[in-house]
Amino acid sequence: MLEAVERKIDQMVAALEDADARELYRRLPAGKRLRARLILTIAGDGPEAVKLAAIVEMIHAASLLHDDVIDAAELRRGRPSINALYGDKTAIMFGDVLYSTAFTQLVDLGRPIARSIATAVTRLSLGERRDVLLSRRFHTDREAYLEMIYLKTAALIEAAAESAALLAGKRPEPYRRYGRNLGIAFQMIDDVLDVTEDEATLGKPAMHDLSEGKTTLPFIDLYEALEEAGQKRLLALHGRPIGAEDREWIREAMERHGIVERCRAEAGALIAEALELMRREGETGLEQIARKMVERNS
Amino acid sequence: MLEAVERKIDQMVAALEDADARELYRRLPAGKRLRARLILTIAGDGPEAVKLAAIVEMIHAASLLHDDVIDAAELRRGRPSINALYGDKTAIMFGDVLYSTAFTQLVDLGRPIARSIATAVTRLSLGERRDVLLSRRFHTDREAYLEMIYLKTAALIEAAAESAALLAGKRPEPYRRYGRNLGIAFQMIDDVLDVTEDEATLGKPAMHDLSEGKTTLPFIDLYEALEEAGQKRLLALHGRPIGAEDREWIREAMERHGIVERCRAEAGALIAEALELMRREGETGLEQIARKMVERNS
Repeated sequence: MLEAVERKIDQMVAALEDADARELYRRLPAGKRLRARLILTIAGDGPEAVKLAAIVEMIHAASLLHDDVIDAAELRRGRPSINALYGDKTAIMFGDVLYSTAFTQLVDLGRPIARSIATAVTRLSLGERRDVLLSRRFHTDREAYLEMIYLKTAALIEAAAESAALLAGKRPEPYRRYGRNLGIAFQMIDDVLDVTEDEATLGKPAMHDLSEGKTTLPFIDLYEALEEAGQKRLLALHGRPIGAEDREWIREAMERHGIVERCRAEAGALIAEALELMRREGETGLEQIARKMVERNS
Repeated sequence: MLEAVERKIDQMVAALEDADARELYRRLPAGKRLRARLILTIAGDGPEAVKLAAIVEMIHAASLLHDDVIDAAELRRGRPSINALYGDKTAIMFGDVLYSTAFTQLVDLGRPIARSIATAVTRLSLGERRDVLLSRRFHTDREAYLEMIYLKTAALIEAAAESAALLAGKRPEPYRRYGRNLGIAFQMIDDVLDVTEDEATLGKPAMHDLSEGKTTLPFIDLYEALEEAGQKRLLALHGRPIGAEDREWIREAMERHGIVERCRAEAGALIAEALELMRREGETGLEQIARKMVERNS
């Protein structure tokens, strides 16, 4: 099913009639195409569903191009990022090209879908901004963290699920909620993997978030579980490169306080609620996508 | 008439319910609102025309935010740029927020207009990329220069004029052409002003283009008019900071060969054709906008 989506994206890029854009597109790793899978599972693989999936994947790719500039990321899925290969300018402009190409195509899918996806892109950009603003200092504001990951990650998955339901003539509300829960859980798991996995598995440096200044869920939970001395040590590590010894200490402290399990359970509860909603709709194909998301290790 | 456009933009920014975005928006100089004037002159000042004008100005502002990051510009209209004030990250994200907000609103104006404007944004991004690629070396490829300024500057003005005509139920084709000519002439004049004006008038460093590596029309024409020794001297100045003595030499050489007059005449011919088209349509209000554009000094 995904092959049709890849072909559709290739076709949209080819229609730009710009050799440079085609070449840049070939450098982008395709990724897991989670959003496309979700759309096709909900809406089938007719031409409009394939088009919606291609548009959403293109938007996702554009957002990653800009994220990698913003985070000064050298790697994306284990390969050099576009900003690392060609500089920030290229990544910014190519992101803009993909965004606007996706928006142009979106117009054909009708007003409710176009509005849903376009609104999600605004949320995504505001979310990336919030992420940067929240990274200025260590914080323990769970609400701010949850709102930020909703905007940054869940809003587009929510809009993808809602739009797919609209295409398929299904009630959008439970699909919205499914997508929202899935997206928040996805980001929580991402934030856990940053702590538990090594560079080889992640395709990016391990424990990058804390040294980047990001206070993710496991660090909020860890801070609250630690005694004063531990809290001080953790605070001192925020926003600076973390050595092997401190990394080991963090892992050990998280283990001791059961932080990773707690975070995984929180993500798991969101997934369980999402699956229950889908069961009620008689939707059978979405269980595997949700399970894959929480059970992955990269 | 423009006040309604300003209010509409304020309203769209306020609807983001994001204090940070509101604050950033207040830091943006409004500019001449040329595109909004054009739209209201063609389509009147009804709510849809005001909305279209607000959307196009928002897209223009977003593109300037990204351009200033790409060009590492410290000044915009004589005031510090957002990237200079808050860093590249902020400018990239805020640009994305404005782009996607504009696209969300665009959906309400119907498919032909949404498609026209969205396609122009793709061109604009491809144009900015072409500009960077062309800046790698000095060139005398007029076709490449014209195509690049069409994409970078004229495509959005073309789409604005076309969309305004569609809104007003007028034949879009002559308005497209008017907008295209106006946009190309506008960029030519911009490239001339970079040579003729000083920093105080421009609100940005003088003769910035050549030192940035950009081979604009006056430099293409100058190169072709110069003898071999002059050509060598000009080539040696490409892509490097230019001192007062060399700047004086360039100005004097341009004067001697009538380069500025020739460029202004080329822009003037495009404007004349655009005005003739509008005369044939019985459109009377567009003459002043076109004249202002070529007669400006900043």
